[in-house]
Amino acid sequence: MAHSAVERRLSTIAASVEAALDGVLSLEAGAGETARPARLVEAMRYAMLGGGKRLRPALVVLTAEMLRADTAGALRAGLAVECVHGYSLIHDDLPAMDDDALRRGRPTLHRAFDEATAILAGDALLTLAFDLLAAPATHPDAQVRIGLVSELARAAGVGGMVGGQMLDLAAEGRFSGAPAEPQDEAAVLRLQAMKTGALIAAPIVMGAALGGATPEQRVALAAYGRALGAAFQVADDLLDVEGEAATVGKATGKDAAAGKATLVAALGVDGARRRLADLTAQAGDALSPFGADAEGLRDLARFVAERRA
Amino acid sequence: MAHSAVERRLSTIAASVEAALDGVLSLEAGAGETARPARLVEAMRYAMLGGGKRLRPALVVLTAEMLRADTAGALRAGLAVECVHGYSLIHDDLPAMDDDALRRGRPTLHRAFDEATAILAGDALLTLAFDLLAAPATHPDAQVRIGLVSELARAAGVGGMVGGQMLDLAAEGRFSGAPAEPQDEAAVLRLQAMKTGALIAAPIVMGAALGGATPEQRVALAAYGRALGAAFQVADDLLDVEGEAATVGKATGKDAAAGKATLVAALGVDGARRRLADLTAQAGDALSPFGADAEGLRDLARFVAERRA
Repeated sequence: MAHSAVERRLSTIAASVEAALDGVLSLEAGAGETARPARLVEAMRYAMLGGGKRLRPALVVLTAEMLRADTAGALRAGLAVECVHGYSLIHDDLPAMDDDALRRGRPTLHRAFDEATAILAGDALLTLAFDLLAAPATHPDAQVRIGLVSELARAAGVGGMVGGQMLDLAAEGRFSGAPAEPQDEAAVLRLQAMKTGALIAAPIVMGAALGGATPEQRVALAAYGRALGAAFQVADDLLDVEGEAATVGKATGKDAAAGKATLVAALGVDGARRRLADLTAQAGDALSPFGADAEGLRDLARFVAERRA
Repeated sequence: MAHSAVERRLSTIAASVEAALDGVLSLEAGAGETARPARLVEAMRYAMLGGGKRLRPALVVLTAEMLRADTAGALRAGLAVECVHGYSLIHDDLPAMDDDALRRGRPTLHRAFDEATAILAGDALLTLAFDLLAAPATHPDAQVRIGLVSELARAAGVGGMVGGQMLDLAAEGRFSGAPAEPQDEAAVLRLQAMKTGALIAAPIVMGAALGGATPEQRVALAAYGRALGAAFQVADDLLDVEGEAATVGKATGKDAAAGKATLVAALGVDGARRRLADLTAQAGDALSPFGADAEGLRDLARFVAERRA
């Protein structure tokens, strides 16, 4: 796919994600549920609907499609990852965490609703993710579905995304009472691999599982996922330094102001740009066993590296 | 089992839960994890270790044992439910929610640590619950494990526990700005079935699944679970009115002060006591298909109704 072809494919997937989330985040109680409080569902919809790149669901779908797996099941697994991503943003934005007022150019959930509702909406989205994965519509084989649950739980938990957010707060000096300390490169890489990398790599591994990948293919796709996750974060750090708030949809320059542990702080802008090029090349190399079939994933890595928002 | 026999069995299970949690909540990164931040693990341990009745794990274990299923797997599934219970207490105690200072006679997690850590520890425990259920050690059959994931996610989500907490805050007038309004009995029952009942009933249904219960047995056990969940909450409401703070381990009289929607408020103390007796009888009746095998679960229902803390 050429660059614009990737963007077209991402747009199509994003539209499917939006429509599917609209259906899932419904006021109607599902099987085994008593009732769904309207305000809570509205808060979940506010946070989850109305756009977003939907990169994580796209990673499940594109990986599964490369392996000729069912797109509907992959989309559903992608919704689960998107719910985890959405919950993490809601909780990260809370006053006790990053205290952010804007997200994608709109008031954050706790500003638009209130803090209690935002905490509970995040909790409900995290829980919903596992409910979605568990249903037969995701994949007919229970063994595959339980593998997805396991993968997502590891990526999101104490040794993954949540652990990474904890390290991020610690790096800001939040728990020591001391000002933020410059983190060395190894510490920044570990923090970022956990906080954002894990939830970029997991949907690729999940797509591999849905597509019945061989062990060798899984190893290759996991390597692609790690490189892509790292590239995504470097691009994000660069955007915070170089981007315009209007394009990025949130305040920029915040990382430096907060003393955040970023790779730009550790390597400088030029060093970070070189690292980004290396990681994009690594991501492409990891896909070599798939030949031309991996063109979509290869273009996606370039797209992630070059994104402006 | 006589009353003291139930208590002895509960103590044994509680000791097993404590030991198993101690192992699971470890600083050592598990397979597929990068690292576990020490402060986050310490917070999870503070919240989860050091006692508690461990009623929910006991429900999984006693139900599974009645059906002659493997105790080790049931204990593991019970840990998952206990992690969900623990996370819900951490988040409910937060300043933006119930703003509680004490839990089981100790400072709540956000007081002992800080608010950001408490939010993330809750998130990590909820995620860990599904990780625990997904592992083969819980049950060799993936179909059974995915059923456990589904059951727990439904019980904990927007149409279950989290939804119930939302209704509880709404009943206090939190979102309207108006003072709390007296809730009618039907509204209180629905709220309580969601907020606490769902996570009492779910472990019983999970124990049934682990024990390979027939559809008829599952229906009977689900009915037992609903009655027991309701009885538990009525007993809790009565304790808040009649109990001593020192015995209960948290402030009492808080419900009335907060205008909480309780069955004591809707039915009065005597009405609530009669309801509790009815529910205990219902729970016993639901177990009739199991005859003498269900003696443990029957005694447990009586123990729950009569508990003083």
